Amino acid sequence: MKKIKSLGYDVVFEDNLNELQSFLIDHDYSQLLILVDRNTNDHCLPVLQASIPDIVDYDIIEVDPGEENKNIDFCIGVWKTMLDFGADRKALMLNLGGGVVTDMGGFAAATYKRGIDFINVPTTLLSQVDASVGGKTGIDLDNVKNIIGTFSQPQAVFISTAFLKTLDDRQIRSGFAEIIKHGLIQDKALYQKCKSLELPVVPNEIVFESVQIKNNVITIDPKEKGLRKILNFGHTIGHAIEGYSLENDQSPLLHGEAIAIGMICEAYLSFKLNNLEEAELEEIVQYLSSVYPKYQFDQSIYPILLGLMRNDKKNENNQLGFSLLRSIGDCDFNKYVEEADIIESLDYYRNLNS
Amino acid sequence: MKKIKSLGYDVVFEDNLNELQSFLIDHDYSQLLILVDRNTNDHCLPVLQASIPDIVDYDIIEVDPGEENKNIDFCIGVWKTMLDFGADRKALMLNLGGGVVTDMGGFAAATYKRGIDFINVPTTLLSQVDASVGGKTGIDLDNVKNIIGTFSQPQAVFISTAFLKTLDDRQIRSGFAEIIKHGLIQDKALYQKCKSLELPVVPNEIVFESVQIKNNVITIDPKEKGLRKILNFGHTIGHAIEGYSLENDQSPLLHGEAIAIGMICEAYLSFKLNNLEEAELEEIVQYLSSVYPKYQFDQSIYPILLGLMRNDKKNENNQLGFSLLRSIGDCDFNKYVEEADIIESLDYYRNLNS
Ligand SMILES: NC(=O)c1ccc[n+]([C@@H]2O[C@H](COP(=O)([O-])OP(=O)(O)OC[C@H]3O[C@@H](n4cnc5c(N)ncnc54)[C@H](O)[C@@H]3O)[C@@H](O)[C@H]2O)c1
Ligand SMILES: NC(=O)c1ccc[n+]([C@@H]2O[C@H](COP(=O)([O-])OP(=O)(O)OC[C@H]3O[C@@H](n4cnc5c(N)ncnc54)[C@H](O)[C@@H]3O)[C@@H](O)[C@H]2O)c1
Ligand SMILES: [Zn+2]
Ligand SMILES: [Zn+2]
Repeated sequence: MKKIKSLGYDVVFEDNLNELQSFLIDHDYSQLLILVDRNTNDHCLPVLQASIPDIVDYDIIEVDPGEENKNIDFCIGVWKTMLDFGADRKALMLNLGGGVVTDMGGFAAATYKRGIDFINVPTTLLSQVDASVGGKTGIDLDNVKNIIGTFSQPQAVFISTAFLKTLDDRQIRSGFAEIIKHGLIQDKALYQKCKSLELPVVPNEIVFESVQIKNNVITIDPKEKGLRKILNFGHTIGHAIEGYSLENDQSPLLHGEAIAIGMICEAYLSFKLNNLEEAELEEIVQYLSSVYPKYQFDQSIYPILLGLMRNDKKNENNQLGFSLLRSIGDCDFNKYVEEADIIESLDYYRNLNS
Repeated sequence: MKKIKSLGYDVVFEDNLNELQSFLIDHDYSQLLILVDRNTNDHCLPVLQASIPDIVDYDIIEVDPGEENKNIDFCIGVWKTMLDFGADRKALMLNLGGGVVTDMGGFAAATYKRGIDFINVPTTLLSQVDASVGGKTGIDLDNVKNIIGTFSQPQAVFISTAFLKTLDDRQIRSGFAEIIKHGLIQDKALYQKCKSLELPVVPNEIVFESVQIKNNVITIDPKEKGLRKILNFGHTIGHAIEGYSLENDQSPLLHGEAIAIGMICEAYLSFKLNNLEEAELEEIVQYLSSVYPKYQFDQSIYPILLGLMRNDKKNENNQLGFSLLRSIGDCDFNKYVEEADIIESLDYYRNLNS
């Protein structure tokens, strides 16, 4: 068992959930509400239930799985179910699932009766290395990602890689994009380790190191006034592509898949505007292209993408703010980029050999 | 011009809005969004506009007036309009209106892009003496009052009693209930002053003193862990009656009217369970009955009222927590009351001579 201290709470790494059990015994919550989606209900809830002490009563709230359900309608459903269960201010919400469940459950808890406690038990690689830590909660509105939300810290996060066993390959790869990102922005050694891995197996150690990097950044800058923005590398363009795909594709891109595209475009911008060496650009592009499939789109969607970027949270004073690499392992933020360059970076991606 | 220091911000009392003007000039917000309802758009916006420096651009967001619109649907409308106006994280929301506008606007701001700044310019007596100060934001869901919300402090509050000129008598009386409450729970002298007033005229001094009392309480206990609960005197039963009335009456009770009923019931409970002297109970009941009309209801609605109370935020571990007077000017909190006594207090109210 390992622990990382975050913003007033612990991130616990354990495969047996013993610490989670102690947490529930030690705290005097009036009620336990477990938020799951259909998949985590099937695959993860039985494992969790074995760890809930007999003395603790709980109720289950189930939502439909998938990003398209991380919206206000489902959130209203969660709030109403909390009301139906008579949840009071001393209730605890346990979010058991991927980033959709931890983001929406965190938001629902942070706003129910002006805020009840919640804990995260992330069950996807993506939520383990990224979404469950850092206090960002949120939901989408009109396909603008995470546009409604709060900064609200969980009381604890329990990470058990045992949950990943039932996760399919594509989901593992999607989550893995955030690990690559952590390497690219802060830790060249981690990036090198990534490259040596044979996916879909991701050693515990890599998960742990990845959370450490994210945690270092967010504890320095919890509210994203500065440094924390480097975690958005790949996300300005990536979120726009994700939003577009969600609206238009039969089988939409996963978050990490979209972020991988965003990282290629933004690595290009880093090369063009922020002194990233061409050799490093090529190296990044080659590696990302080897892990993630090529996404086909044409210039006709650029206006939509740019519109989505303008609505992005990272946008200030009508300028599109990017986080750009200086080199592998080193990232700058608050880099304002012209639309013409963004378009050039999208062209760059489209023209890569697939 | 007078100022009260609150939780990291000033509450400014001024009739000319000079300080508001300076605030807008001194701060470098990317954008100003003004939230109004139809009435404050007509009556208050022109006055405000005269005080907005020429250099500041602004957009108006208008909602329908009234408590029945303080709900998630309208809030979604506000969020979407913010998005349409391209509001970024450095935008400022200015809530110009009564408690409905300050509560909902505060919530919309606190959750838009994980929180943008907002200021309150309250235009009803109720919002001046109560809703605009203290950081509680919120909306109703399924007629459960303020069930969704946050604790989020405004950057400043500007109180100009000049706005009250266009407010009708009934609204003044409704707001006045909170001033009476402040007297009852903390300041016998203020309560006596209330009694000597000839409504609807409320001197500035009384507004100021009333805000001072609320502010003293909330700065000691911002998150309502203890002392702040005394501000809920009259509100456990009052909110239930308000929720019922909203759902069932053609012309529903106003907040303060419902709270006045709640204060009579809870004064009765204070007498029965918390050593409030019978003479003081009678004195309170007589005074409140002289200011507020009698509300007619019968026993058949008790189960509905009790149901609403159970969903109330003040409820913990399935016990109904009340704030009860010990004497005029002195209030206790965390008093758990049996349903039988609540019913007795409702009977007591119903049996008063109207
Ligand atoms: N809050 C943050 O800081 C932050 C950071 C990164 C991403 N996010 C958000 O996270 C979301 C993406 O997270 P995600 O990739 O975990 O998506 P997800 O929650 O939709 O999970 C992906 C899929 O895997 C299923 N699943 C989850 N755990 C499983 C398990 N153990 N076995 C089998 N199936 C399982 C889910 O039901 C879902 O179908 C996005 O909404 C993104 O915005 C948030
Ligand atoms: N956040 C808090 O701490 C807190 C405290 C007390 C009450 N509240 C909330 O406040 C709300 C009630 O506030 P309210 O009584 O101000 O209601 P309100 O906002 O509905 O205003 C009452 C009516 O007066 C109109 N109006 C407002 N200003 C006017 C003016 N200057 N001239 C003419 N008409 C005007 C409004 O359009 C509305 O029709 C409730 O929702 C209650 O829950 C919140
Ligand atoms: Zn991400
Ligand atoms: Zn009130």
